[in-house]
Amino acid sequence: MEYRQHQLDNGLTVLAECNPQAHFSAFGFFVRTGARDETAEIGGVSHFLEHMVFKGTPNRSADQVNLELDEMGSSSNARTGEESTIYHAAVLPEFQTPMVNLLSDIMRPSLREEDFETEKQVIIEEILMYADQPPYGGYEKIMEEFFAGHPLQQSVLGTVETVGDLSAEQMKRYFDQQYSPGNIAFAASGKVDFDRLVEDIEQNCGDWKPFDVSRDLTEAKVSSGVHTIHRENSAQQYILQMARGPASNDPRRFASRVAMSIFGDDAGSRLYWEFLDSGRAESIGVGPCEYLGSGAVMTFLCCSPDAAKDNFERLTKLQKEIQAGANERELEMAKRKIASQIVLGSEATEARMFSIGTQWLNGADYKTPEEIATLYESVTLDEVNEVLVEFPLDVNTTVSIGPNESL
Amino acid sequence: MEYRQHQLDNGLTVLAECNPQAHFSAFGFFVRTGARDETAEIGGVSHFLEHMVFKGTPNRSADQVNLELDEMGSSSNARTGEESTIYHAAVLPEFQTPMVNLLSDIMRPSLREEDFETEKQVIIEEILMYADQPPYGGYEKIMEEFFAGHPLQQSVLGTVETVGDLSAEQMKRYFDQQYSPGNIAFAASGKVDFDRLVEDIEQNCGDWKPFDVSRDLTEAKVSSGVHTIHRENSAQQYILQMARGPASNDPRRFASRVAMSIFGDDAGSRLYWEFLDSGRAESIGVGPCEYLGSGAVMTFLCCSPDAAKDNFERLTKLQKEIQAGANERELEMAKRKIASQIVLGSEATEARMFSIGTQWLNGADYKTPEEIATLYESVTLDEVNEVLVEFPLDVNTTVSIGPNESL
Repeated sequence: MEYRQHQLDNGLTVLAECNPQAHFSAFGFFVRTGARDETAEIGGVSHFLEHMVFKGTPNRSADQVNLELDEMGSSSNARTGEESTIYHAAVLPEFQTPMVNLLSDIMRPSLREEDFETEKQVIIEEILMYADQPPYGGYEKIMEEFFAGHPLQQSVLGTVETVGDLSAEQMKRYFDQQYSPGNIAFAASGKVDFDRLVEDIEQNCGDWKPFDVSRDLTEAKVSSGVHTIHRENSAQQYILQMARGPASNDPRRFASRVAMSIFGDDAGSRLYWEFLDSGRAESIGVGPCEYLGSGAVMTFLCCSPDAAKDNFERLTKLQKEIQAGANERELEMAKRKIASQIVLGSEATEARMFSIGTQWLNGADYKTPEEIATLYESVTLDEVNEVLVEFPLDVNTTVSIGPNESL
Repeated sequence: MEYRQHQLDNGLTVLAECNPQAHFSAFGFFVRTGARDETAEIGGVSHFLEHMVFKGTPNRSADQVNLELDEMGSSSNARTGEESTIYHAAVLPEFQTPMVNLLSDIMRPSLREEDFETEKQVIIEEILMYADQPPYGGYEKIMEEFFAGHPLQQSVLGTVETVGDLSAEQMKRYFDQQYSPGNIAFAASGKVDFDRLVEDIEQNCGDWKPFDVSRDLTEAKVSSGVHTIHRENSAQQYILQMARGPASNDPRRFASRVAMSIFGDDAGSRLYWEFLDSGRAESIGVGPCEYLGSGAVMTFLCCSPDAAKDNFERLTKLQKEIQAGANERELEMAKRKIASQIVLGSEATEARMFSIGTQWLNGADYKTPEEIATLYESVTLDEVNEVLVEFPLDVNTTVSIGPNESL
């Protein structure tokens, strides 16, 4: 495994973790843009643009893009989040150059008016389908309430209204403000010919004009409170909570993740024993929502509506109790689980591409899985207990969704 | 990569694909039992039993089982299907023996009355949570209708009623009829010490008494027809279809999977162009449901309720059209995609364990990913066109779920 990095004159970064033993190659463009870079008016434009990127360029029609992906037998996809948009594909190593050429080309999309209107319908369908799935808009609601007044309150999908009102002109303007080469990295993993890769990227992307991109990274002043979404028809009650947590560039995030494993992972944690082992809830968990400059910890609970009130009280009690501190045994178990997950997660070629790309997105230097494991290994009980007090889980925004009219 | 196999005197099979380069080991017990081995009265017992297996043995309390899994930092889980129940865990190689010991022990569970009643609540919660998720019971409904009168009509989860009425006594009887060592294999992958593994399994499982297990493998006489589940509150309409397809031991299944890729995979297929590229539907796909002795092909469509009728007609038209045959270009693309998926899917240690275990479940001889790829590679256009006619997709059971009162 060898890590290589190169920057083009226009600012575009090329990263690769080369593994000559791999049977596969994974490639992806990582763009530092997402919902937090949108105004309310153009809500959903990042995600809509992600779709449009596959709809053709001055050199290729949409059909041709699809056909080429198809002919390489690739597994390709894209995803948009609060602060990133990623376009990726995995292929047999023999297709490295054609895949790099194709991905580079689609990153300068035509954004044709006609395709724009067709694709708008696709996005609206996606929003509606998503609305059917538990917790029925609860995630959007809690982001909106918790981060009220901050760019992170923006929904990734947008709404039927904002997407419906978007114009191709607005999308072009957004693209021209965000897709600067300095705001983009190309990450590769698996069996990669790095010198060839840099040559191809230089050739394809060297003439992309750089410009300044700005982003509001002010720390969010987060809110607390309780909100209800009444959903008569739901069989279960869903409770989401968001509390303050470390940002993605905060060194306390390692201790916080260990603390979350102790408090709420799906086997052996405090929440596990209280809610899952006992059958009090169908599922419960706690996980990090780390962004640049601001962070949160999200708790998720699903249980039968008539158990919701009692479970909510039990949850609050445990959230207060853990602020008195975890113990050494809990710390050791959590660290072992995390170490094990890191090894397991570092096996797949695609996972490595996402890892190095995400490190770049977060402005972090490259670290191997072993180095990351060491960072977790060195977390002390004091550090865990400090984050539990600095980021109290019981001070939060709560959204309850389901048949119950109040919590 | 070396494949090893051993059978104990009592019939239990040990399988392993040993990869000395791996950093991880995956282990699992594969039991040939599931919903199809249940009567209507005890519907859901296989899945409920899967949960109870983690609730302690004569040697370990439930807490101890959890604690040991936790201490090894393992990622463990279990799953129950129509014809299999699988208990699996992945750990760092140093934990091979303790993990094999633990998994072997829990396969002889105490099934204590008290734990049984607590866990019953967990199962009922799971059934309710599942009921909230699209397509809202549609899968259970279509299995019940398509396989009416055949053991495959049984739902894996069971219902709140059947699970509510189950007694620990009935579960014990089911266990005593199904969990014979001859009906079980232990599969391992990754960094595995096979000789040590066989020794440990002999030691732990050598005294399990064998007995005969019977299973009804008659080919199902499947039904066709249209059914509606009215769900006012749903934003989208969901349409499921089940048509006859090859069984898991039918050599035509390779040609059928190639045919399905041509007709309905998520990029470049006929359904893709008609429904996804055009924005007519949010999602559509077609996939195999292969069982021993009987098989089906399932089609899934999700779209806005007012587009459902038109989409249904378009779908039926394409299903008829493809019976005239696919073409060579489609065949080559589909094969390339499948080859690529096989390589990608064979990377992960856990995936290899599932692959060799599943081959055993289906009574197939061990095949490497390369050998499986060759089977797909050798599929001819004639074979594809034959399965398209032998298993016509437009002769099916259809279930439509959503706000529309009729199709």
